[in-house]
Amino acid sequence: MFTLYDATVAPLKRALTNLSFILKKGEEYADSIKIEHSVLLNARLFPDMFPLIRQVQIATDMSKGGVARLAGVEIPKYEDTETTFEQLQARIAKTIAFLDTIKPEQFDGADTKDITINVRKVDVHFKGQAYLLSWVQPNVYFHVTTTYNILRHNGVQLGKPDFLGPRDS
Amino acid sequence: MFTLYDATVAPLKRALTNLSFILKKGEEYADSIKIEHSVLLNARLFPDMFPLIRQVQIATDMSKGGVARLAGVEIPKYEDTETTFEQLQARIAKTIAFLDTIKPEQFDGADTKDITINVRKVDVHFKGQAYLLSWVQPNVYFHVTTTYNILRHNGVQLGKPDFLGPRDS
Repeated sequence: MFTLYDATVAPLKRALTNLSFILKKGEEYADSIKIEHSVLLNARLFPDMFPLIRQVQIATDMSKGGVARLAGVEIPKYEDTETTFEQLQARIAKTIAFLDTIKPEQFDGADTKDITINVRKVDVHFKGQAYLLSWVQPNVYFHVTTTYNILRHNGVQLGKPDFLGPRDS
Repeated sequence: MFTLYDATVAPLKRALTNLSFILKKGEEYADSIKIEHSVLLNARLFPDMFPLIRQVQIATDMSKGGVARLAGVEIPKYEDTETTFEQLQARIAKTIAFLDTIKPEQFDGADTKDITINVRKVDVHFKGQAYLLSWVQPNVYFHVTTTYNILRHNGVQLGKPDFLGPRDS
């Protein structure tokens, strides 16, 4: 039977794994053309958009916050101090490791659970299902895709298969 | 009870509705600064990436193909001849109207259904659940986000709330 756990944990792990791979290609590209990593890490698509580092921070925040709230466990706290590819990779790995600690039964009743988050200083209320489908999922994909687009726009040779990752069957 | 239909149809409709809104803002922006619509419609983030029109075509293709295959109905065929914002809006509206014809019971058994698609001339096999979670969803969000990023990079004043749309609760 298809469950909210199935719709949440594996897809987020997949998105983060692909994000890690995309960043690795970005780092290799910077090395190959001898540019400072910080140029890519601070690149953005428009002056008032977030730079790459922040995109990765938000993608991981949305993933850990989403899974923790749906499972009813404490959200791991990160400091948002990353300045290198290595540190971003560690943040992604830490998030995936957290997702791996969550068992399917911790999602029992998650679809109807009341969840409140604070968005730009306003409390927003969701049922678990709406929280996953209209908040967590689109946000994670948004920030992973934007990371991809920032790197792509700067010349990193990525293709959509890198974003999608290996296929399940 | 949470179903594959819930995880598919409403989120895709939401993504397409937000895509329509984002394009409307792009069109208004072009008019406000007196640039030809075709400049934005053919904009891309890197020379070998698809332009905006193609991003919208693929987002709608993935949506109609995804829902049709999971429901076991024929996939509506579109001609890919759009050259204006109005035509892209019509394509999105047509896709949403198609999604609206599908009833929850048409998704009975969809999660374990065998689905085969042809990707770059190779047959790829999925169960319905993997097809939704590792193919349809990431693809639709990828192309909607990339449309957003192309417009944003060209100066359209969009914010993430435009991408996320009104919140469910």
